[in-house]
Amino acid sequence: MSELRQNRATKNWIIIASERARRPDDFRRRDRPAALPVHDPACPFCTGNERMTPPEVMAVRPSGSKADGPGWSLRVVPNKFAALEPVGELTRREERDFFRKMDGVGRHEVIIESPVHNETIGTMFQKKVEQILLAYRERYLRISEDGHFQHVTIFRNNGEGAGTSLAHPHSQLIATPIVPSQTRQVLEEAMRYYDDRGSCVYCDMVEEEIAARKRIVLESDDFVVFEPFASRKPFETWIVPRRHNASFGNISAAEAKKCAHVLRRVLGILHRHLGDPDYNLMICTAPFKDANESYYHWHVEILPRLTTTAGFELGSGIYINVALPEQTARYLSGLMKKGKRRG
Amino acid sequence: MSELRQNRATKNWIIIASERARRPDDFRRRDRPAALPVHDPACPFCTGNERMTPPEVMAVRPSGSKADGPGWSLRVVPNKFAALEPVGELTRREERDFFRKMDGVGRHEVIIESPVHNETIGTMFQKKVEQILLAYRERYLRISEDGHFQHVTIFRNNGEGAGTSLAHPHSQLIATPIVPSQTRQVLEEAMRYYDDRGSCVYCDMVEEEIAARKRIVLESDDFVVFEPFASRKPFETWIVPRRHNASFGNISAAEAKKCAHVLRRVLGILHRHLGDPDYNLMICTAPFKDANESYYHWHVEILPRLTTTAGFELGSGIYINVALPEQTARYLSGLMKKGKRRG
Repeated sequence: MSELRQNRATKNWIIIASERARRPDDFRRRDRPAALPVHDPACPFCTGNERMTPPEVMAVRPSGSKADGPGWSLRVVPNKFAALEPVGELTRREERDFFRKMDGVGRHEVIIESPVHNETIGTMFQKKVEQILLAYRERYLRISEDGHFQHVTIFRNNGEGAGTSLAHPHSQLIATPIVPSQTRQVLEEAMRYYDDRGSCVYCDMVEEEIAARKRIVLESDDFVVFEPFASRKPFETWIVPRRHNASFGNISAAEAKKCAHVLRRVLGILHRHLGDPDYNLMICTAPFKDANESYYHWHVEILPRLTTTAGFELGSGIYINVALPEQTARYLSGLMKKGKRRG
Repeated sequence: MSELRQNRATKNWIIIASERARRPDDFRRRDRPAALPVHDPACPFCTGNERMTPPEVMAVRPSGSKADGPGWSLRVVPNKFAALEPVGELTRREERDFFRKMDGVGRHEVIIESPVHNETIGTMFQKKVEQILLAYRERYLRISEDGHFQHVTIFRNNGEGAGTSLAHPHSQLIATPIVPSQTRQVLEEAMRYYDDRGSCVYCDMVEEEIAARKRIVLESDDFVVFEPFASRKPFETWIVPRRHNASFGNISAAEAKKCAHVLRRVLGILHRHLGDPDYNLMICTAPFKDANESYYHWHVEILPRLTTTAGFELGSGIYINVALPEQTARYLSGLMKKGKRRG
């Protein structure tokens, strides 16, 4: 029999569809993705093509090397086709006292994660993954100091099915002058939980997942990786810091190092065992003004795109999941134990 | 410059991305979809294969013809791989006083819209489209009387990219024993608007769209078709009844006829001019208990899948739309005027 499950943090329900159930191994990619070269002369993110992107706003490069020249190991550049740009007015306007709009003020940046065209987080050395997370933090903090924006969404689209056309390893961030209503709703739910129980729902979720011991993929001193009880999609994976902390901007360097360790291991397993699946990765964080709240808790959500979201999901917000999170967690943690620690 | 726009009904923001803007014609499908036969002997929804589906719960067929035999012009059957089924307990349970779940009680039905394998709403005679809408209503009302469910989502997935593997024309409905949290949030926003202004936000939206005259695709005595000001995706199209009415279950037979007329015309234009694009269609309606509320207003949302939703959308709920709704509406209404009325 199918089951309806509620995510206690968001109050969203999902359906675990037993009639359509598939085993973890069934999600392995059947086609063999084309092997990529180490360097692609046509790729705007490859070394030597630095002029194909807007000027860098940050880079990790040897001291003395010139901005927008080669030698870097990570670059952050404005997105050439930016959805939002740091120009325009911040005031809201209304047409006919009804249609509310504002200029598309914001920042849209690309974090070029490596000069190597054909690697990805799951196959990089740990040091590089750490560097990516520190770059996220650096840009997050600089943008928060700017004073024009309220929220930053950091995300990674892996593969065409996840919405990217560029194979070169990269993430993106978009800073918005408003708090997205989805973020506001998630915060409001977390606040209601806090009002009711006096604790952070994400702290409780981590504690309960550890106690339940059914959906844990990986545990370290600082991070817990699990398949959420109310997973929306097969292989949905959350990485949650043990320390309560509303904002990603507050992550310490030591935590970034430990987060890099688990992130690389999880994405490495997905890469090797599912055949580099399409996925979206999101850093879920409180808006700037709520950076030190007691009720929200930043975390990473990885949503593989192994099934297609359809009309029921769009119309109701209820996802139909054809994989059992407990089974997926067992599969992944088994692979974790088998896999050697590398990097 | 890009623009941030807010949907007044849901409070969701979207971005109209000018740097990536594409013209309506750019969304035309380049590949030529394979021509389908009138009848496919392997298709479980084709005439003669009635035994390949669970027994019908409703059918439009000549009086005297046998259930689950040929001769029908429309059938409604339980989904063979149902996400929810009408068995189990309606009580919520908690594991460890935290993980909330309930049995997957519900109904999941398929509306087989026609015995003809290769037609679709946009190419059918109007009478048939009317029959589909009346079948939706019939099932909606029967399920609401059952007393076990709180909400019904009626939807249509067109094309593989929209989540269906079966080409035969069909829609689906899922009845849930809970009100989806997305539906609850949309209702709460509508209620806040009503508290504030004393009117239904959807009634106001229709009135404002008509007055603005920028995004109207088609108007009839009973229905208004427009590209919403804050369209989430290229060619997002809403069909809204002029008469205030919270629940689709309250649609009159005369309204169903007029709704069929505009629905067929809109989907016909998309079919012919974009090349049968993938889309999801949702009938957005109030939960049963709110069927007569003053603040919600049932309507149809058509969301073509011409672009891929990615990490930013998933992480923030803010959609990036690369088409200008005003331009799309001009394009579609131009085609409407050119097209002869058929059927």
